[in-house]
Amino acid sequence: MKGVILGICPSAIIVDVTHGIRPGNILDGAFALAAAVPYFPRGTIHVAVVDPGVGGDRAGLAVRTAGAVFVGPDNGLLDLALRDQRRIQVRRLENSGFWLDSVSRTFHGRDIFAPVAAHLARGVSLNSLGPGCSRRERLTWPEPERWADRYIGQVIALDQFGNAITNLPAAWFHKLPPDALRVRAGRRGGMPFVSHYQALPHGTPLTLIGSAGYLEVAVNGDSAVRRLGLRQGSPVVVRVIREQ
Amino acid sequence: MKGVILGICPSAIIVDVTHGIRPGNILDGAFALAAAVPYFPRGTIHVAVVDPGVGGDRAGLAVRTAGAVFVGPDNGLLDLALRDQRRIQVRRLENSGFWLDSVSRTFHGRDIFAPVAAHLARGVSLNSLGPGCSRRERLTWPEPERWADRYIGQVIALDQFGNAITNLPAAWFHKLPPDALRVRAGRRGGMPFVSHYQALPHGTPLTLIGSAGYLEVAVNGDSAVRRLGLRQGSPVVVRVIREQ
Amino acid sequence: MKGVILGICPSAIIVDVTHGIRPGNILDGAFALAAAVPYFPRGTIHVAVVDPGVGGDRAGLAVRTAGAVFVGPDNGLLDLALRDQRRIQVRRLENSGFWLDSVSRTFHGRDIFAPVAAHLARGVSLNSLGPGCSRRERLTWPEPERWADRYIGQVIALDQFGNAITNLPAAWFHKLPPDALRVRAGRRGGMPFVSHYQALPHGTPLTLIGSAGYLEVAVNGDSAVRRLGLRQGSPVVVRVIREQ
Repeated sequence: MKGVILGICPSAIIVDVTHGIRPGNILDGAFALAAAVPYFPRGTIHVAVVDPGVGGDRAGLAVRTAGAVFVGPDNGLLDLALRDQRRIQVRRLENSGFWLDSVSRTFHGRDIFAPVAAHLARGVSLNSLGPGCSRRERLTWPEPERWADRYIGQVIALDQFGNAITNLPAAWFHKLPPDALRVRAGRRGGMPFVSHYQALPHGTPLTLIGSAGYLEVAVNGDSAVRRLGLRQGSPVVVRVIREQ
Repeated sequence: MKGVILGICPSAIIVDVTHGIRPGNILDGAFALAAAVPYFPRGTIHVAVVDPGVGGDRAGLAVRTAGAVFVGPDNGLLDLALRDQRRIQVRRLENSGFWLDSVSRTFHGRDIFAPVAAHLARGVSLNSLGPGCSRRERLTWPEPERWADRYIGQVIALDQFGNAITNLPAAWFHKLPPDALRVRAGRRGGMPFVSHYQALPHGTPLTLIGSAGYLEVAVNGDSAVRRLGLRQGSPVVVRVIREQ
Repeated sequence: MKGVILGICPSAIIVDVTHGIRPGNILDGAFALAAAVPYFPRGTIHVAVVDPGVGGDRAGLAVRTAGAVFVGPDNGLLDLALRDQRRIQVRRLENSGFWLDSVSRTFHGRDIFAPVAAHLARGVSLNSLGPGCSRRERLTWPEPERWADRYIGQVIALDQFGNAITNLPAAWFHKLPPDALRVRAGRRGGMPFVSHYQALPHGTPLTLIGSAGYLEVAVNGDSAVRRLGLRQGSPVVVRVIREQ
């Protein structure tokens, strides 16, 4: 993909965000993309490829938001990054004039998405890539819920340190006193909510707000995933204790 | 290696192709290199280092083809990328004036190949690197065979998705009706030949033409390597069924 | 981190040294950093993040040596790279004007170190980052010892090939005849000292001077770590045999 990009746009600056997405795991990819996008400069072109449906009838998309452009398969992968964006412009990739001459049915990252991104970087307009597109595939994003004194979510991503990142957004906890929260993840209950990993002794399970802006389950100095047996989909419940 | 290159040629654009080659596996490296080379711009300098013989008497090489330059150990690693190239120019790396001042016997990638590549990128001529070289080490590349209605090959590379890539070239299958092919890989027989991974239901073993232009054994949504117990060298046989 | 850097300093050339540091392993990181630094061009800004104490009271540092600048946590991570440097200038990162607007308590690499490095790359002076700092955290670096005819050290790093790198410096062995040395690592004794990996037959345990300038325990064509059961901290003893 990088060779293709540099062949079309030699001045492109290419950044790898991650190669650690589990094969075919669209939620993993969507989460990693959404976590990275806010930190890239205006005008960045994000090419995302987690593409188990490659070569079938899923479309390819180019999407422009106020600050960035996205290129990738229409399988929900871009959905989380596009979530709070208003006024997005979406095109289906149908103009093969911006693809490689020969397109495989197993690697559109190289044959379609990379060359399209490189042409965009050279100034090709989004409109020329294909027709407008009003419907997109949606990510199966598990929405968290609030029930009185409980916040109910689940693990959506696991990082390289063994932290388990949930779908419970930081904004839900900002106004609550941290020591009034108790968290259950998997079969482990009563975990405290703290500010940083070393807030409690080595080996202690804890929860905090992670760097992507979601509640995260961690163990200071160890892997929460391994220690607590967590995985994508494990339920996480935050309980608010109000003692007066 | 990157620090060395940028110290000599600050304007170099450096691209990582892969760090996933298994230690000392020259065939893995040769395959990854050959798969990537056609997609890089004309004039790219490819530095390849899978070098179990470092520090012994194996030579280092610089090779110019019509469209690219290659730098690496003379151990067969470059052989697959050079396969269909006519009129190549080969030099043995003997002029230590283009190496680091101090050369270890354990990491020529950093001490010899990287600085040589950087000097080439700055315009140093191939001829100045050392004497011409007419013989090179050959890769132990297992040639596939055709026997009447059978095509006999083997697994040569495993990718990160658990697909098993064979040495059976796509060109052998272009004129055959896909549904007339049945494939055996390891102990699994009767696998169909399809166009893309999701052509069959999730979990189904199948074969198709992979993105490097070879027959590939895959399982939709799973690892063929793990599911079918395949590894480098596992036999793969394609049978043509001619019913009239 | 790369997005942040490019947002502040679009002309920055960013190089990944390694993503293979084990979580929270400061010694691993310190060793990788010290091994890479001598090979980068003068003026390189090295951003190092192995940061288990993020969000607590450990300081952040920027350090200028004669040839480079370092940015990272004050936890010993920079110590090995700074070891033989005289006249270093050290600043505590306290001026939040060079940080991201919003600073998490879980990822200072992105929120503090990357933006500080990018501002330095744009020409901001070290002095403007915060007050001078005379004391730094020291790395727990196990010093090797010499006892008459024995050199006693330990394994400090494991590389991707399964080689076990020790803290015994190459300089201790330069004047000794290689065949007068016998090495014990873990429970394996009598290992010879050779010049390169293939100096002995495939599968043979051996020791040599590795590319970082330290004695290394290896097995030709295999993983010494796995074969000999070595890990960080395993004792390594070199004995000099003087027969006259």
